[in-house]
Amino acid sequence: MTERLLPIADSHVDEALGQALHAFADELYPICRSITGNGVRQTLALINRRIPLETHEVPSGTQAFDWTIPREWNIRDAWIRDRHGNKIVDFRKHNLSVLNYSVPMSATMTLAELKPHLYSLPDQPEAIPYRTSYHQEAWGFCLPHRQLMALDEGPYEVVIDSTLEPGHLTYGECLLPGEVSDEVLVSCHVCHPSLSDDNLSGIVVATELARYLATVPHRFSYRFLFVPGTIGSIAWLARNEAAAQRIRHGVVLTCVGDAASFTYKRSRRGAADIDLAFEQVLRHLPAPGDLVDFSPYGYDERQYCSPGFNLAVGCLMRGVHGEFPEYHTSNDNPGFLKPHSLAETVSVLQQVFEVLEHNATLRNTKPFCEPQLGKRGLYRTTGGTGPNSENMAMLWLLNQCDGSQSLLDVARRSGLAFRTVVRAAQALAQAQLLVPVG
Amino acid sequence: MTERLLPIADSHVDEALGQALHAFADELYPICRSITGNGVRQTLALINRRIPLETHEVPSGTQAFDWTIPREWNIRDAWIRDRHGNKIVDFRKHNLSVLNYSVPMSATMTLAELKPHLYSLPDQPEAIPYRTSYHQEAWGFCLPHRQLMALDEGPYEVVIDSTLEPGHLTYGECLLPGEVSDEVLVSCHVCHPSLSDDNLSGIVVATELARYLATVPHRFSYRFLFVPGTIGSIAWLARNEAAAQRIRHGVVLTCVGDAASFTYKRSRRGAADIDLAFEQVLRHLPAPGDLVDFSPYGYDERQYCSPGFNLAVGCLMRGVHGEFPEYHTSNDNPGFLKPHSLAETVSVLQQVFEVLEHNATLRNTKPFCEPQLGKRGLYRTTGGTGPNSENMAMLWLLNQCDGSQSLLDVARRSGLAFRTVVRAAQALAQAQLLVPVG
Amino acid sequence: MTERLLPIADSHVDEALGQALHAFADELYPICRSITGNGVRQTLALINRRIPLETHEVPSGTQAFDWTIPREWNIRDAWIRDRHGNKIVDFRKHNLSVLNYSVPMSATMTLAELKPHLYSLPDQPEAIPYRTSYHQEAWGFCLPHRQLMALDEGPYEVVIDSTLEPGHLTYGECLLPGEVSDEVLVSCHVCHPSLSDDNLSGIVVATELARYLATVPHRFSYRFLFVPGTIGSIAWLARNEAAAQRIRHGVVLTCVGDAASFTYKRSRRGAADIDLAFEQVLRHLPAPGDLVDFSPYGYDERQYCSPGFNLAVGCLMRGVHGEFPEYHTSNDNPGFLKPHSLAETVSVLQQVFEVLEHNATLRNTKPFCEPQLGKRGLYRTTGGTGPNSENMAMLWLLNQCDGSQSLLDVARRSGLAFRTVVRAAQALAQAQLLVPVG
Repeated sequence: MTERLLPIADSHVDEALGQALHAFADELYPICRSITGNGVRQTLALINRRIPLETHEVPSGTQAFDWTIPREWNIRDAWIRDRHGNKIVDFRKHNLSVLNYSVPMSATMTLAELKPHLYSLPDQPEAIPYRTSYHQEAWGFCLPHRQLMALDEGPYEVVIDSTLEPGHLTYGECLLPGEVSDEVLVSCHVCHPSLSDDNLSGIVVATELARYLATVPHRFSYRFLFVPGTIGSIAWLARNEAAAQRIRHGVVLTCVGDAASFTYKRSRRGAADIDLAFEQVLRHLPAPGDLVDFSPYGYDERQYCSPGFNLAVGCLMRGVHGEFPEYHTSNDNPGFLKPHSLAETVSVLQQVFEVLEHNATLRNTKPFCEPQLGKRGLYRTTGGTGPNSENMAMLWLLNQCDGSQSLLDVARRSGLAFRTVVRAAQALAQAQLLVPVG
Repeated sequence: MTERLLPIADSHVDEALGQALHAFADELYPICRSITGNGVRQTLALINRRIPLETHEVPSGTQAFDWTIPREWNIRDAWIRDRHGNKIVDFRKHNLSVLNYSVPMSATMTLAELKPHLYSLPDQPEAIPYRTSYHQEAWGFCLPHRQLMALDEGPYEVVIDSTLEPGHLTYGECLLPGEVSDEVLVSCHVCHPSLSDDNLSGIVVATELARYLATVPHRFSYRFLFVPGTIGSIAWLARNEAAAQRIRHGVVLTCVGDAASFTYKRSRRGAADIDLAFEQVLRHLPAPGDLVDFSPYGYDERQYCSPGFNLAVGCLMRGVHGEFPEYHTSNDNPGFLKPHSLAETVSVLQQVFEVLEHNATLRNTKPFCEPQLGKRGLYRTTGGTGPNSENMAMLWLLNQCDGSQSLLDVARRSGLAFRTVVRAAQALAQAQLLVPVG
Repeated sequence: MTERLLPIADSHVDEALGQALHAFADELYPICRSITGNGVRQTLALINRRIPLETHEVPSGTQAFDWTIPREWNIRDAWIRDRHGNKIVDFRKHNLSVLNYSVPMSATMTLAELKPHLYSLPDQPEAIPYRTSYHQEAWGFCLPHRQLMALDEGPYEVVIDSTLEPGHLTYGECLLPGEVSDEVLVSCHVCHPSLSDDNLSGIVVATELARYLATVPHRFSYRFLFVPGTIGSIAWLARNEAAAQRIRHGVVLTCVGDAASFTYKRSRRGAADIDLAFEQVLRHLPAPGDLVDFSPYGYDERQYCSPGFNLAVGCLMRGVHGEFPEYHTSNDNPGFLKPHSLAETVSVLQQVFEVLEHNATLRNTKPFCEPQLGKRGLYRTTGGTGPNSENMAMLWLLNQCDGSQSLLDVARRSGLAFRTVVRAAQALAQAQLLVPVG
């Protein structure tokens, strides 16, 4: 019951921090990221200005479990020019305009020839969709459906100035050692181009958490991963099987900057401490969050929770991927990110870390009848026992701490806030009424 | 993952089959069945025209656990004639008119003497009730309450031309051997006289299922029992204790031809595979069925689920016995049976057999991270993962198949249709990504 | 399956008994009780007129686990007199007027000096609150807020003629030995002064139950404790650790005489037989009672359920402490107690005892198929099996009694009333179809 990672007073949402995080996201927005290439490197370099980041380069062709690190993709420019010489689609104006991982291309063709390579959203005619073709050679352009409908027969000049060549997959890693080697994992993906919520929100929140944790003492070691989705986490797991075994708790961050309330997807285990910690924290928010069961569709929790690893890693979201219209379109832009939401996400994760850090299993040293709190100055005299008071938490702790129940278990069963339980446990431990188990 | 018992496309309800089953029920309707006697033999003979049926004769007086096979009852004619010589109650017009198992009788008596032997339904004055007295010697007549109320003082000539003599209890059995000796039991009762839903519906559906299963390959052996209720299943269990131990899954069919939606009563075990299979199939019907917990009142599941056997046998119904007004009255007649319902019941049971046949416990051969489906042609490239798609089922299977979860378990946890899970499992097995356990 | 503690026909509520219990409460009402002192002795003496009661005196200074028996408090008189000589607060008019455990006091003082020692209820301006200061030396007066507001500047004569001196803590105990030494505990507190529901209701109901049980045979031994709250039960537990281990089932009675429907708080174990027994009985009441989970705030169940003991002791209430406005005020007076409620509480507890007494684990001696009830005269012939009939209970018993299920378990699973299950079990046991396990 040391005073590590002091409880955050009043779950304060730091609005100035929200503005700063939003500004950082703005800075990252224009970069054309993909699962490999210089966009990831530029992104990691900007993160590295804020936190110490180890950057890893994995050569193309490297085997990672069932997968092979692909060739590296880089793009300089791309456009479609109409017969009047106007650039009607221009990568430099929006990097979503190009099918991500498009092979190089230079040709003149009619609309009929071009059309199989054009992607749009008929039900969102003003938005540019985000499309990729990582594992199958292809080229293409994405554009507003309204614009696609207005195209004449051509011919069109079509240029994609990209390279797809042996190179590397790049990811960033920041390990903050704690008192113990047991780890808490925070993972986010860094492979989406100009998309704000689905990518940048996780990056800026994870960066802030790493910065914060470097300034406070903590029991657990914290590992932050900034990885290209799927292939990046697979590469990390393949290269770090021993480290993976040290992960006790973990969370994947995605779409954590929009205005929606929180949704936490449980780990495959379903009732791991990380799941219970999020349950505690989300339940006590002004707009209580939802918890949903694990499913194997989503982000990198798919890999961390694959049956061979089965790590206690959940996924924190605000907007749920695929369920909001801005998802994977040009409307997931800086305006869709809310400074307050970013700051609140930081606060929620700090509270979750606080739960993990302070959770412990204690034992009542005087288990026969209640000990007399009054003579130890632990009980208010005249006046009652409020339903959420520390007095009430003391009674719960003394009753439940038979060596089988953690503080998190006591908070769940009692319905009390975890912090109230911790404060009460600290007071009881100081009075020698609770001692650690084992 | 062989292709036994191919999935039935679209859970097709075969309306022509429904008409044929209804016609068969019409053919069986006039026969006066009881728990023993020639009515059962005639019924089994008509079934035997459609499927190979072994007929067993158990002599009166044979001990079957706590029971004794009763004397055999046969009836040729019975009537009540009024003082004007009119047959006012006539067995030949409706065999429900006689208390089933009535001893022989010939007398003239007043209404006052006759009345204790007359049964009617005051709240359904036009219907003849169905009454029996198997285990206590008695005689009686059943008639519409309206008619009973109109009787004058008599005297009446009362004749029951029946015999109750040492003979046999008769039941029919059809065993369709499969690849393994583990059995699926389908049991229905054949002891009710002219009652359509409560008797004939189960008989015609079971007959059709046996006919169908004889034409397709199957893993399990299927045993169909056409038995007099209670005493018939007890006799079978007493004579087949070893075979009973081979029953892995089973269902009793009763009242499966009326227009109500399905109700499945779980086995005593509550979560046996047969229970989960019905849950799967009934949940995905256009009018989803209900599942109710086991109770020891009902049909022959009472015997199969007695604690000494505790077999995994549930009971499928549409109308629930005792809860619809036609139950055990002359209104449970051919018009109460719906051809569509009969055919749909066949389809549901075929789907349940399909679940049982295809259920298996498989293991992911590449449990560390997801295997790359794309390079095996198992993943659609551009385009998403629909919520009920085979892609989604593959992700669930790869995530869950750690050797502890059956396909039925995966279908339950994922909420996907069992068939989608099976098709995905077949594709993954073909790609060596799933292999059978043990 | 002996005929101990015959089922009470129709759960009769004895209105005359209710009047008698109310009269007994009236008799106890004026006594100024506290956790020690003559008020408790007088109370126990009145109980002892009705049942044989062993009175224990524990000297001040005695250690009881973490607690020390306090000095004994007695009070003769107390008042506040205004400058006109009028007694404006008078202990003899209402014993709630004095802060319970006030030290002796005699002084003249201004309102400003007096005010810190005055307690009132601003939101119930006509009621006198009940306040105590057992563990911290203090003095004070309680009065209606309306009266407090009208006080002038004084000066006032303030007198408390009390003593707080070495003496004893007194409690009463009544043990009614049964066939076995396993015990049922009924505990109530006797430390509140003129408060009717919160104190007297439990006392008079417990007294009546002890009186009743002395007149009927019973299997369990019944122990009734009349103890000062908290310190009394702690003292008893400290002096009776061996006896505590014999307690199989127990209940604390509090606030059981008001007009509210019942609330039963489960034991810490949550699903002990006492919890299931209350569930059975409360469910079948005309106004079904609520069951709530254990919490460590309340009455002496806090001590019985402390982790070192973890006894199967719940708490029966009508009004829930702290949730009704009369609680701990002068409005919890004889008029707040309802004779009918007192009598109904007696009936409910008799029914709970009946469940505990008759509960047993039996085994079906003929577990293969149903035994034939008819040949043993256990089954009605013509006519059905009503949903709550003994016939139905027999089927449930024969099906469930495989040696693992108690009668209480069968009642829960079947939804049948426990009495119906017991009657059916008695009939089956008489027919040798059920025998006790072990």
